[in-house]
Amino acid sequence: MDGCVFCKMVAGEIPVATIYEDEAVLAFLDIGPISDGHTLVVPKQHCTRVHECDPGVLAEVALRLGKIAKAVAEAMDADGYNVLCNNGAAAGQIVDHLHFHLIPRRAGDRVLTGWPSYRYGKGQMEEIAVKIRRNLE
Amino acid sequence: MDGCVFCKMVAGEIPVATIYEDEAVLAFLDIGPISDGHTLVVPKQHCTRVHECDPGVLAEVALRLGKIAKAVAEAMDADGYNVLCNNGAAAGQIVDHLHFHLIPRRAGDRVLTGWPSYRYGKGQMEEIAVKIRRNLE
Repeated sequence: MDGCVFCKMVAGEIPVATIYEDEAVLAFLDIGPISDGHTLVVPKQHCTRVHECDPGVLAEVALRLGKIAKAVAEAMDADGYNVLCNNGAAAGQIVDHLHFHLIPRRAGDRVLTGWPSYRYGKGQMEEIAVKIRRNLE
Repeated sequence: MDGCVFCKMVAGEIPVATIYEDEAVLAFLDIGPISDGHTLVVPKQHCTRVHECDPGVLAEVALRLGKIAKAVAEAMDADGYNVLCNNGAAAGQIVDHLHFHLIPRRAGDRVLTGWPSYRYGKGQMEEIAVKIRRNLE
């Protein structure tokens, strides 16, 4: 897409530290990492958010995600990793071309710490479930 | 898998607030949400981490992710959402059955705040890229 920085990377117009590339996917190091080896996995076909993508494009990414994650985690000697896709500015998406962050993690690091878990009030969970299910019928 | 709480949910042995279900996937509300409508999308076939899953199982999840995300985000009137898969205890994985968190987000909420972004030192990025690429050759 015109003006999309990741489309320019896919087209080779902006250089990246490539990790992996094939006909469907480009994976490269994030230049503003939150841990060493922080990688972005990007479908070559432009789309913006998960629910706006052709499901087949997402499936092509999914088919490659395991081998890329394994390569990143092992090279970084990581204890674990997050796969994170931010959808919309409110969720932290900065570039409007779908991308999956692969974030190598070590026990006790202080990455992705905001997990303000709580409990639903009485009846609230079932109310919400009904509301969502209505959208899937 | 014996003793796996998500396998028991898939088998109907533990009740859940189901959002969506078909032959490959179960989606239900997280009982310890970090935002209202926080949903878990789980492949019915047991696997633990992204790189240990049959890629085909991941692709089946990916094919359904968009429609589930759209239903959740719209029902919650969300400004955006995160898709997050934690792999390994160090990355926040608590149940050892692969699951994708769908986390509805609103502008200015204080969820997933730990994003300690930095820059690589001179030459460090290319060194890391070489190391990871070696695992993918």
